[in-house]
Amino acid sequence: MSSATTSAAPADIARTAAISSRTLKAVSGDDRNAALTAIHEALKRSKDVILAANQQDMEAAQKLVDAGKMRQSLAKRLFLSQSKWESMLEGILDVRDLEDPVGKITLARKIDDGLDLYRVTSPIGVLLVIFEARPEVIANIASLALKSGNTVILKGGKESANSFAAIAQVVSDALATTNIPSGAVQLVQTREDINALLDQDQYIDLVVPRGSNELVRFIKDHTKIPVLGHADGLCAIYVHEDADEEKAKRVIVDAKTDYPAACNAVETLLVHQSAATTLLPKIAAALLQAGVSLRCDSLSKAALQSSSLDSEMKAMLQDAVPEDYDTEFLELTLAIKVVNGLDDAVLHIGEHSSGHTDCILTENKEVAEAFMTRVDSAGVYWNASTRFADGFRYGFGTEVGISTNKIHARGPVGLEGLMIYKYQLRGNGQVAGDYGSGKKPFLHETIENPQI
Amino acid sequence: MSSATTSAAPADIARTAAISSRTLKAVSGDDRNAALTAIHEALKRSKDVILAANQQDMEAAQKLVDAGKMRQSLAKRLFLSQSKWESMLEGILDVRDLEDPVGKITLARKIDDGLDLYRVTSPIGVLLVIFEARPEVIANIASLALKSGNTVILKGGKESANSFAAIAQVVSDALATTNIPSGAVQLVQTREDINALLDQDQYIDLVVPRGSNELVRFIKDHTKIPVLGHADGLCAIYVHEDADEEKAKRVIVDAKTDYPAACNAVETLLVHQSAATTLLPKIAAALLQAGVSLRCDSLSKAALQSSSLDSEMKAMLQDAVPEDYDTEFLELTLAIKVVNGLDDAVLHIGEHSSGHTDCILTENKEVAEAFMTRVDSAGVYWNASTRFADGFRYGFGTEVGISTNKIHARGPVGLEGLMIYKYQLRGNGQVAGDYGSGKKPFLHETIENPQI
Repeated sequence: MSSATTSAAPADIARTAAISSRTLKAVSGDDRNAALTAIHEALKRSKDVILAANQQDMEAAQKLVDAGKMRQSLAKRLFLSQSKWESMLEGILDVRDLEDPVGKITLARKIDDGLDLYRVTSPIGVLLVIFEARPEVIANIASLALKSGNTVILKGGKESANSFAAIAQVVSDALATTNIPSGAVQLVQTREDINALLDQDQYIDLVVPRGSNELVRFIKDHTKIPVLGHADGLCAIYVHEDADEEKAKRVIVDAKTDYPAACNAVETLLVHQSAATTLLPKIAAALLQAGVSLRCDSLSKAALQSSSLDSEMKAMLQDAVPEDYDTEFLELTLAIKVVNGLDDAVLHIGEHSSGHTDCILTENKEVAEAFMTRVDSAGVYWNASTRFADGFRYGFGTEVGISTNKIHARGPVGLEGLMIYKYQLRGNGQVAGDYGSGKKPFLHETIENPQI
Repeated sequence: MSSATTSAAPADIARTAAISSRTLKAVSGDDRNAALTAIHEALKRSKDVILAANQQDMEAAQKLVDAGKMRQSLAKRLFLSQSKWESMLEGILDVRDLEDPVGKITLARKIDDGLDLYRVTSPIGVLLVIFEARPEVIANIASLALKSGNTVILKGGKESANSFAAIAQVVSDALATTNIPSGAVQLVQTREDINALLDQDQYIDLVVPRGSNELVRFIKDHTKIPVLGHADGLCAIYVHEDADEEKAKRVIVDAKTDYPAACNAVETLLVHQSAATTLLPKIAAALLQAGVSLRCDSLSKAALQSSSLDSEMKAMLQDAVPEDYDTEFLELTLAIKVVNGLDDAVLHIGEHSSGHTDCILTENKEVAEAFMTRVDSAGVYWNASTRFADGFRYGFGTEVGISTNKIHARGPVGLEGLMIYKYQLRGNGQVAGDYGSGKKPFLHETIENPQI
């Protein structure tokens, strides 16, 4: 294990992060950017060492895969390929070149003469980022944290132990040459139970899990610290009676097959009863041709069986069980259900959706607006693939993750999700007892072009 | 108990709120405002009935006070005085006349031709508001919830049972004449353990406790639902070496004595060592004259004992114990401590403050800026009383409460704190597989003057 990773007690790690946070808040944007440049250059110089460490992790993982103790997909995520390496390095500079999110004035109000209220963006404080396999996340998250003025505790998984230690050493050495306080990025890789860190709600302000549904669910169940992320991505597409056939086929096949393991892939197809015998057979044929298994409720199955779908395809139809409508398949399987119409679709989504991204296919603007108003998910789409739900595709440059929370930040979360605000009141000795009924009134005037 | 309060099982109450939430999202701003008008008029008409019910609660409370089973201050909060009644009614109309917070576009971006992304403000969903004595909170919170398009479960305390039932009946009858779904405001007053409601994290999105520190702490410890509010309000004022004597005396006395039971009253006074023998004796004299008990650390006590403070006052000085610096006294008691300077003050506040509101008294702008940057509290004040930390004083018109959370909303929280956003993507059949490296590029252009 590298000396850059700490084996201090979780409470000490968390307290150090909280103390460093107060120092980091006073570090200028230029100094935070300089730190990102330093990390970028140091990583570039250390490519060989890091890739050699990654090779060790890959070999250990392959042994576990061969022994049936690790999924091949997990082993794949460990691999720092040439393209991952390059986009990791590029990502650091992309984040550096974003506008400084710290210290923006979002409200300025004259409470009285010489008594001015400002709401100013500020870092949340201390982040705990827990991840499993992908080692490049370290550089990505450390950049986002420093850019936003937050201190971060990075807790890596054992699968990427060597890669993690190597990158940690380089990041740590690079930061030592900058004006960033030494406790701003702590890289933790102890055998200690993850619970011990999740207990530090006194010092840690936000947990960001980057890994499997199981990891996210475990974390949500074991901490009082707010968690930013999503466990499930159970996305639905509703095909209204007037949906366009070509758009429907393209969007649904893309949403299911473009990357089936992604959280924004579609898992449930809801079909208006009037479209069950008209549109559904054509959509089903396109899906079956793309290798998708279809799990049908009785109405959709009956409609397909009595359609002109060829008999070979009809034989491939499966019966859905109730759990299918609550399952994130993450593979080429789709649950299909016939609904009475918009109300029924909205009801089904409300009961079964994970609040990630849900879509309607219709040519009727009024129906689309009603769907987008009534469905309460982070993303509500009209005639577009659910696969667009992604920070890069939204133009956020980079993302912390995708949130299905109902407060703070939803959907793809960029730097903004790592910020909060504080109220600054700048006075001249004013006291509250001088104001109120029968005394001085408040002015409450907006300050134009505020400058602190 | 009135028929307007429900005794349904907590899971059914919560599920009803969630289902109604999806209907309420589609109710227009005009219809939501009309509901507030209807509540206002119905309450006005029912004044006698409600005040008679309140009288019953007051009599029951007085018996408990006489028997030593209830604090007089709690009994006082139960009372619907003429001025409380009027400001309750006025508050409903004030909220009604605020700008509609639902459906504002906060981001509009062209992802590609015919593929437009909008971020639109939307209600959080289902609120659970738990309160103790003050019955007027029902009208206040129901107004805020309806205005922001959130459904709300109001859980009252047993102290205000009769007032609660009477107001609930009126609100319920009034809403039945409007376009608001019947499950939008549910008034719960069962003997059922509060825990059963706090377990409904599947349906409830935010808990707002309105009551004592003990209530808030209990709720935070017993739910996975996010809680908006604060348990402690442990505010500090730091007197820098160059603080102005008159301002210091006025601000500190106001912050301590204007309303000692408030969360924004000062509890700890930190004094620069150079000011201990110069400013502190004058501040201490003003505080003692105002009837404040002073709990001093050894340095401040020594400084005061050797000062020109009169001997009677010197005899009144108390010794502080370590816990005093973590205590929200909520009465005329103040803990005093000498610090080495700004760094030491920031460190003390970081370790002991509840993150509510902290203040510096100084004539040096640079020192003030450093304090306001480095202290991470919802409110950071320069030369102004901590008592200004309040939604009305900030000009927010009304407040849900004051939050010491580090995410979502901090400080006095108005309607904005009950809102989140969703992303709407409006397309024309676009699929993600058409974009990316070697394929179509994203445009990511800002849409000027967006209109949906």
